[in-house]
Amino acid sequence: MTQTDRDSARLTLEERASLTSGRDTWHTEQVRDVPAITLADGPHGVRRQNRGSGDALGLTDSVPATCFPPAVALGSSWDADLARRVGEALAREASALGADVLLGPGVNIKRSPLCGRNFEYFSEDPHVSGVMGAALVAGIQSRGIGACVKHFAVNNQETDRMRISADVDEQTLREIYLPAFEHIVRTAAPAMVMCSYNKINGVYASENPWLLTEVLREQWGFDGAVVSDWGAVNDRVAALAAGLDLEMPPTRTDHEIVDAVRAGRLDEDAVTRAADRVIALADRAGRAERFDDWDVDAHHELAREAARGSIVLLKNDGVLPLAAGRRLAVVGELARTPRYQGHGSSHVVPTRLDNAWDALRAGTAATFAAGYRLDGEPDASLAAEAVAAAASADVAVVFLGLPDEAESEGFDRTTLDLPAVQTDLLRRVAAACPEVVVVLANGGVVSVAEWQDAAGAVLEGWLPGQAGGSAIADLLLGVHSPSGRLTETIPNRLADVPSHLHFPGADGHVVYGEGRYVGYRYYDTLGRDVAYPFGHGLSYTRFEYSDLDARETGPNAWTVEATIANAGDRAAHEVVQLYVAFDEELPTRPRHELRGFAKVGLAPGERTRVRFELTGRDIAQWSPSRGGWRVDAGTFTVEVGASSRDIRLRAELSTPGDGHVMTLGPMSTLGEWLDHPVGSRVLKSRLSAAAGLASQGPPALLALARGIPLAKFSTFGIGLTGDVVDDLVAAVQAGDTGS
Amino acid sequence: MTQTDRDSARLTLEERASLTSGRDTWHTEQVRDVPAITLADGPHGVRRQNRGSGDALGLTDSVPATCFPPAVALGSSWDADLARRVGEALAREASALGADVLLGPGVNIKRSPLCGRNFEYFSEDPHVSGVMGAALVAGIQSRGIGACVKHFAVNNQETDRMRISADVDEQTLREIYLPAFEHIVRTAAPAMVMCSYNKINGVYASENPWLLTEVLREQWGFDGAVVSDWGAVNDRVAALAAGLDLEMPPTRTDHEIVDAVRAGRLDEDAVTRAADRVIALADRAGRAERFDDWDVDAHHELAREAARGSIVLLKNDGVLPLAAGRRLAVVGELARTPRYQGHGSSHVVPTRLDNAWDALRAGTAATFAAGYRLDGEPDASLAAEAVAAAASADVAVVFLGLPDEAESEGFDRTTLDLPAVQTDLLRRVAAACPEVVVVLANGGVVSVAEWQDAAGAVLEGWLPGQAGGSAIADLLLGVHSPSGRLTETIPNRLADVPSHLHFPGADGHVVYGEGRYVGYRYYDTLGRDVAYPFGHGLSYTRFEYSDLDARETGPNAWTVEATIANAGDRAAHEVVQLYVAFDEELPTRPRHELRGFAKVGLAPGERTRVRFELTGRDIAQWSPSRGGWRVDAGTFTVEVGASSRDIRLRAELSTPGDGHVMTLGPMSTLGEWLDHPVGSRVLKSRLSAAAGLASQGPPALLALARGIPLAKFSTFGIGLTGDVVDDLVAAVQAGDTGS
Repeated sequence: MTQTDRDSARLTLEERASLTSGRDTWHTEQVRDVPAITLADGPHGVRRQNRGSGDALGLTDSVPATCFPPAVALGSSWDADLARRVGEALAREASALGADVLLGPGVNIKRSPLCGRNFEYFSEDPHVSGVMGAALVAGIQSRGIGACVKHFAVNNQETDRMRISADVDEQTLREIYLPAFEHIVRTAAPAMVMCSYNKINGVYASENPWLLTEVLREQWGFDGAVVSDWGAVNDRVAALAAGLDLEMPPTRTDHEIVDAVRAGRLDEDAVTRAADRVIALADRAGRAERFDDWDVDAHHELAREAARGSIVLLKNDGVLPLAAGRRLAVVGELARTPRYQGHGSSHVVPTRLDNAWDALRAGTAATFAAGYRLDGEPDASLAAEAVAAAASADVAVVFLGLPDEAESEGFDRTTLDLPAVQTDLLRRVAAACPEVVVVLANGGVVSVAEWQDAAGAVLEGWLPGQAGGSAIADLLLGVHSPSGRLTETIPNRLADVPSHLHFPGADGHVVYGEGRYVGYRYYDTLGRDVAYPFGHGLSYTRFEYSDLDARETGPNAWTVEATIANAGDRAAHEVVQLYVAFDEELPTRPRHELRGFAKVGLAPGERTRVRFELTGRDIAQWSPSRGGWRVDAGTFTVEVGASSRDIRLRAELSTPGDGHVMTLGPMSTLGEWLDHPVGSRVLKSRLSAAAGLASQGPPALLALARGIPLAKFSTFGIGLTGDVVDDLVAAVQAGDTGS
Repeated sequence: MTQTDRDSARLTLEERASLTSGRDTWHTEQVRDVPAITLADGPHGVRRQNRGSGDALGLTDSVPATCFPPAVALGSSWDADLARRVGEALAREASALGADVLLGPGVNIKRSPLCGRNFEYFSEDPHVSGVMGAALVAGIQSRGIGACVKHFAVNNQETDRMRISADVDEQTLREIYLPAFEHIVRTAAPAMVMCSYNKINGVYASENPWLLTEVLREQWGFDGAVVSDWGAVNDRVAALAAGLDLEMPPTRTDHEIVDAVRAGRLDEDAVTRAADRVIALADRAGRAERFDDWDVDAHHELAREAARGSIVLLKNDGVLPLAAGRRLAVVGELARTPRYQGHGSSHVVPTRLDNAWDALRAGTAATFAAGYRLDGEPDASLAAEAVAAAASADVAVVFLGLPDEAESEGFDRTTLDLPAVQTDLLRRVAAACPEVVVVLANGGVVSVAEWQDAAGAVLEGWLPGQAGGSAIADLLLGVHSPSGRLTETIPNRLADVPSHLHFPGADGHVVYGEGRYVGYRYYDTLGRDVAYPFGHGLSYTRFEYSDLDARETGPNAWTVEATIANAGDRAAHEVVQLYVAFDEELPTRPRHELRGFAKVGLAPGERTRVRFELTGRDIAQWSPSRGGWRVDAGTFTVEVGASSRDIRLRAELSTPGDGHVMTLGPMSTLGEWLDHPVGSRVLKSRLSAAAGLASQGPPALLALARGIPLAKFSTFGIGLTGDVVDDLVAAVQAGDTGS
């Protein structure tokens, strides 16, 4: 099954067991001719840790490598080709730095904007996460380096992440928290999957056979190796039995595996399978193309291109792009001392670092004022200096952002607010200067509702990697048009967030009470106001949508095409979004869900045709009772637009369903019998009482009766005894097959 | 244990089994000298069904009895003494009509305003439900008639009620869905509890040993009999084993019990216990005071008093009370043909029936116009006639309400809207008449946001029972001042309802995703706008709150007192409400919860002192990990006010907690160790590395480290090996006891 050059048959049990944990923090074990391989952190840059590390956990000291935009930014590019190219570059650097597997991408869903690690994740939406993650994996693996998709699964917060149980119903798991992993596994075949620290419905991910074996391998066909998040194993034997192949770092407990096999508590085949997968990983590494170095300038330029494509123009009254010759006041320490990545295992020591102030002053008449201290302490003289600078400028470009220590692996935020010293400064600058542009630096969403009226334009710069500073300048100055789009909703306030009442849980449990209604699925289903919707992002040009063609191409297969035209006077990129929609009085599912997107670059006046394919899975829901996907017959709407709330084109399509017909039984209700094609005939022909019920008595009584299971009517003296019901069930079953 | 005059020891197994199901729909079995007893529907009036029933389910034909206000109205009185007196009257009628047990009250929580049976329930709040339910039980049982509290438990919708699983976490069960039952069982000792149809977390209530035995009997001390809702038993043996004593109506399956005992699948003691409880019920009935009749006029007058105390004045610009001498146009068929109760098992044939039109025209210059048809069909001439009548009146009193067939046991509503023909009429009437008063008739909450600007005053009449018409007139004319208060929030729109995305579920499951955040617990925690908040209701006078005195009276015991004064010029009643509040940035519990209320009647200028007692339970949360209630040390706020959003007085109190100290172990986090009184000492004295961690490195790194369980640090090379951790745990345990 697993393709290996070697197999483990000739290894002793002890040797096989030793392959299922690492040699040290970053290497697997070498056993006979099976070589050790090297793993390295690195969703957005390679982190090869130095020997003598500078802090207790060794996270901030590593060999320099290109710091590409973290996933929060790269995801906002909605550009799968760009992600693939970044992946290729990452692979080359990994190779040059001696790593065989890169521990990324992270594709967990942004359930709450407070999650401290959101900067490492792509989106609140599984489709965007899956497509962007798959592209990154494909890029990394195109050069033989392995990718490791993480954190599998339902690791949507940092609070108590090593113990907490994420309590989630299966429908929500299948429709929200698993599909990005599923898409990547099915389409990009990552070498590894990393299990998460947390429990899922009470069972540690590292010891969860349903997750690691049934879903991941048996249903999705994953044939790579499952590695633990660093320290995620609590019980070696349970983990191995569940489908975890490699414990990292090692806890020197291989003997527990051996003992368990000898004592009959663990199937030896499980050890063999895991060892084979680690051997296959080593074989794969052996076949990889190797590089000694990379072009530092070219990778920096790619990081700049990626940042440019990721930054989102939230608001613009026309002040952007900055017209030539205007006097700028560049305000904010973050313009000079940029935040460009978050803390934790993804932290990269960059090869170089651009800042926006340097980039802006190179081409404009600009003055700089720090305005505030990065540690949040008030500083009256810095603020006064900034206000003075703004007062003598035409435009104040104010850089605001979260403090460096606010965003990290390991803990969550508790507020969406920017530091008060910064928003206070903004108010004063806005009073002093006629035009104000805000540039944001943050890995998780910040609230804008309280201060954005003070700015004519707001550019969401995210954490843009090492070339973010120059990319921001490119966009402010109009060298390029912004083309990032929000992959997560910006709510008006924290209390509007769907998980707010259930985040981050307590007492060892976090209940995913909002279910499938994450992000725009919640706001749009409820029609609740937001600051900026999912998919939103402005451009310096204007796009027109037309000529929607939505048609069936086969059983539960459809094609949707539309024309997009650049109706403005600047070259720019548009992100065309496809949603499938279900508008219901009482919602039984999210009102609409993203099922496709395409980023297209168009010159002024140019137009192009965008095409999407839809399948039954795109309109299916997970049925807990059936344990599978379900498509009900009926109609649905395809929506093509520029955000979840800027739908430009709509068409209705229909589906015959997936052919499933309800099986009637004694506990089926009268209503279900009456609505069933065969059941209604059987019932009416055999049972005048039922027909009578349907026609006599007040309407409320009929409605009441429709909800009663057939088997229960005997209770109410209607004469439907058990024998009669059995006879009806037999008749309908005969009718199901015979007529 | 169960006190009985007879016991079942001398009965055969068959005889005992036969006692555990009824003889017929309304009677238990007679066995030897154990007499049959008679059960009758009747939360708000006795429904003794006629022999030849008029419809298929026999629900609308019964012997006349006083139709008191259904629970939706009676609950809105917030008057426990009134509920007790209504209970006494119900018992007298039950006795006169030959019933031994009345099947009520219903105390399920109004999770959604759409629930078709909300008119039979008291509130969205468990405290109001419990206090009002207990008062009704006490009244009924004061005359020896048994009360039967229903529907136990978590039966909060009618859709698919006979099959659906209510999926609810235990904390939510313990804090929201069970406390009303608990309060009634503990304080009013009802003769019976009726189990509900639905499943709870996958197990039918009728077969749920956790619910019927562990919680109900072992934890709460219930010693009465558990009866099935009519037809709720699916498996006789499983039900009996779980703690269900009496199946109603009988399904002639007593032999299954006998067979199961003989085959060793059922403990014979379970049969004996159930039979003993049914015998005890018969004994209890034998001891009851018997009455042959009742004073029909006096009971009608009590029904009128109850309705008067229940109706809620939502809005009043001064038009109410109607000044003498004004010409009234009474508009709306509902003024002449009142809706006063809902459909289903609670339906009562009244002894007489007041209507508002008769009551109003008796004392005023008034004209009547039907305005609309009750079936919702447009009728232009009726509408025109009403507009004409309004045009020549000083005040139009417009009666609006839900259609009769909209509210029943057995199905739920799908909208909060009034019929369009009615709201259209209201707009036209408002355009024609300078002053408009709306009187509502509805058992479940209706939305008011779209039309209430057209009315100067809105009187929420609910379904007020047979004397509702005259009670409404009393209030409109100012004979009495309104004193009802909302026991459920009126939301601005359906999409604002906390359960909206999870109601009524699908595929056999309804997920209680909103958890404990039901009603005002949701709106107030999120600060979301509502049309009218929980506890709201206007009066014709004005009340002043002063002199709050909140003090500790013992360990986790407090007294709260306040002075309430009638500062207006009319006698009236105020409902003084006590909330305990917890204001948190990230909510870990509802922002505040009702823990006491008192209805006080005051003459103009009169004042009184209201006193509440609080205990630890009032500020406790259910701890799933501990399996019990938990009080954390800290402060909380007591709020005294006139609604959940009209808090007049506040004071802070503190609690030492319940003495529980966290037990530290290897999986306790560094943060938990550092915050623990003994753990921090042990850690710092024995482990300089930990002390180092706490002082060196960037702040984000320390925050990250605080979340890591001690046992996991070895993974990261910090030197905390398993032995060291074990030693620390031993030390902290010694320290726990020794210092």
